[in-house]
Amino acid sequence: MGMTMTQKILAAHAGLKEVKAGQLIKAKLDLVLGNDITTPVAIKEFNKVGKDEVFHKSKIAIVPDHFTPNKDIKSAEQVKFIREFANEKEIENFFEIGEMGIEHALLPEKGLVVAGDTVIGADSHTCTYGALGAFSTGIGSTDMAAGMATGEAWFKVPEAIKFVLTGKPQKWVSGKDVILHIIGMIGVDGALYKSMEYTGEGLKNLSMDDRFAMANMAIEAGAKNGIFEVDEKTIEYIKEHSTKEYTVYSADEDAEYSEVFEIDLSEIRPTVAFPHLPDNTRTIDNVGEVEIDQVVIGSCTNGRIEDLRVAAEILKGKKVHKRVRLIVFPATQKIWLQALKEGLLEALVEAGAAVSTPTCGPCLGGHMGILAAGERAVATTNRNFVGRMGHVESEVYLASPAVAAASAVTGKISSPEEVM
Amino acid sequence: MGMTMTQKILAAHAGLKEVKAGQLIKAKLDLVLGNDITTPVAIKEFNKVGKDEVFHKSKIAIVPDHFTPNKDIKSAEQVKFIREFANEKEIENFFEIGEMGIEHALLPEKGLVVAGDTVIGADSHTCTYGALGAFSTGIGSTDMAAGMATGEAWFKVPEAIKFVLTGKPQKWVSGKDVILHIIGMIGVDGALYKSMEYTGEGLKNLSMDDRFAMANMAIEAGAKNGIFEVDEKTIEYIKEHSTKEYTVYSADEDAEYSEVFEIDLSEIRPTVAFPHLPDNTRTIDNVGEVEIDQVVIGSCTNGRIEDLRVAAEILKGKKVHKRVRLIVFPATQKIWLQALKEGLLEALVEAGAAVSTPTCGPCLGGHMGILAAGERAVATTNRNFVGRMGHVESEVYLASPAVAAASAVTGKISSPEEVM
Repeated sequence: MGMTMTQKILAAHAGLKEVKAGQLIKAKLDLVLGNDITTPVAIKEFNKVGKDEVFHKSKIAIVPDHFTPNKDIKSAEQVKFIREFANEKEIENFFEIGEMGIEHALLPEKGLVVAGDTVIGADSHTCTYGALGAFSTGIGSTDMAAGMATGEAWFKVPEAIKFVLTGKPQKWVSGKDVILHIIGMIGVDGALYKSMEYTGEGLKNLSMDDRFAMANMAIEAGAKNGIFEVDEKTIEYIKEHSTKEYTVYSADEDAEYSEVFEIDLSEIRPTVAFPHLPDNTRTIDNVGEVEIDQVVIGSCTNGRIEDLRVAAEILKGKKVHKRVRLIVFPATQKIWLQALKEGLLEALVEAGAAVSTPTCGPCLGGHMGILAAGERAVATTNRNFVGRMGHVESEVYLASPAVAAASAVTGKISSPEEVM
Repeated sequence: MGMTMTQKILAAHAGLKEVKAGQLIKAKLDLVLGNDITTPVAIKEFNKVGKDEVFHKSKIAIVPDHFTPNKDIKSAEQVKFIREFANEKEIENFFEIGEMGIEHALLPEKGLVVAGDTVIGADSHTCTYGALGAFSTGIGSTDMAAGMATGEAWFKVPEAIKFVLTGKPQKWVSGKDVILHIIGMIGVDGALYKSMEYTGEGLKNLSMDDRFAMANMAIEAGAKNGIFEVDEKTIEYIKEHSTKEYTVYSADEDAEYSEVFEIDLSEIRPTVAFPHLPDNTRTIDNVGEVEIDQVVIGSCTNGRIEDLRVAAEILKGKKVHKRVRLIVFPATQKIWLQALKEGLLEALVEAGAAVSTPTCGPCLGGHMGILAAGERAVATTNRNFVGRMGHVESEVYLASPAVAAASAVTGKISSPEEVM
């Protein structure tokens, strides 16, 4: 029996010729990630083990991106604690504000993840790197501690769902709409502990930024990971960003999948996930009249350069609706600077946006744009659970940057076509 | 007996020909200001009075700048509360993120304050507008409530200290150094309940941004207000920003002052206020070796375009020291955009700065750059009290944007001359 992409990567990292779905294996790790919320807990666990050194000084990445620039004294103390650990253990990839960004945008940009890698991160959206043909998955702080100590982790080999993509998305349809469509179709537990593996001739019509957004939200369907077949675009991205060696693992012809979906990208409409689950989706023609108070464009899902380009394209020369606060979070300093150089930040601020330095910010109800009771936000983020962005009586509508930008102009959830 | 500038403004607003220091008067108000911390309290007081309407819909300004973009649910609820009040009372000058800025930079920029005005604000640095030849002073939320209801306020007419400025500041010396020098000289209670009145031929060598910084910190010497003689630069600024009528009040020849200081601007050196009081000043040649963790450039004191220009001039082509987090807060959206267009933001971010949307941020320990125990910051802000920016065991060193930028490069408190 053949193996899926994920199974092949895991087999290689476990030193096995073959693995099967359900098998427990111990795999070598190429990267262990933590942020300012999860790393302090991991450090305390690490210190209990009594090891003086981490398994590899360049294979650990620590990105204090959630409550930074330090939101309060507690977050300042947390970051100080992990900074001191990183200095003491000589961890090379510790990133400060001013040089960093949101972890899942930053690591690919810094070339720390490439095709064929096995990555664990103490953050649920670690699955983002599947866009590069890597196996990456979110784990808890204790697993992060063990990973930092040993460079290995135990996994139950997942079975997989195959998504065969065909066709080309229409104007204003992005990877975000595709993944919202898929989650709406299979449900928030539709891929529970499975791999979501993307392949097909439609792949070539999805940019790397589209793929990052799609892999990022695999966890919102309950998946262990999302992963894309490596193609020329992947290789080009990796060569541009990394000096690491990469390995392309393709699924075997006879790999077994629990389900196979064929998705014609040309049929997907801009899609919005209504409160309070990412699978509560409606196409843009079925959203009705939903007035909003805030629009958030950014996050590890949609804070990349293409996201800002489409937002600026829509907002340029227009004004944000007077009822709406628009907050834009470029995902990394590099993206921030590129957006500035391309004139995107100018267009956004002239339209009335507040542009933040990179931070996870309001996505997780952290800071920089928290909602009051009764307030509604359209957000390009990844979760719209009850109270996710603030008060339990607030509401989050997940959408693409195009829909978010259009909604910022009209003051209600809107199609880009309404304003362009 | 003649009157000082402040006394003349107060007399005119009280409908009196003459007022004397110590006299209690009731004066008409041209503007009443509040922010997101103080306005909610003022609204509750206002509602007790039972008045349906505010005294004047265009003479009240509400700027939610302290904990915005909303730091947490509490701040979101506070801003929602004042937004609803502003809508209900049809207050014209309520500013949202994306169109606003830090109150004391925003109001002059929006033309809401001009020479001869009497302004109260429920924020201690309301004294900033003295740079425009206005009488403006910080009051409590209850006074704000009464001001919103009646358009009047009671004042005890202050006596004044006269500062006669001569000479021209040297390169890298700004208004911030002048006011730190003055506060160091007279102490944090050196002008208790007095006016600090600036005059002399040296005035012409101080830009409006220099004067805003100096008037802003009058409260740090305990003053009721700071006020500058109106000259061509003032008039030019007012005409550029406002359509309001202004009145120039000059001090009488025989006005009485409790003290007169002559200050030769050419003799002032870059000056730093050490913890934990603004009068604990040292000139830059006497700072010794003080390693730092964070640099903050911004605030109602020094977040204006000239401040960003000097910071960018120093940081351009250099890198922020690896131990230092540099956070830059342009004071308003307009300044943010101008700094972008002048290439300043690019230079700052390329050097390693995190650039925030306008907010009071860490200045008051609010958010966006809070200090942990033992951490030291050089800040262009106005107060370095114990715990002002975070943990009670953190330290704040007040300085000019030039010194702050140079310190960001070297990682210790440094003169701009060290890096240029």
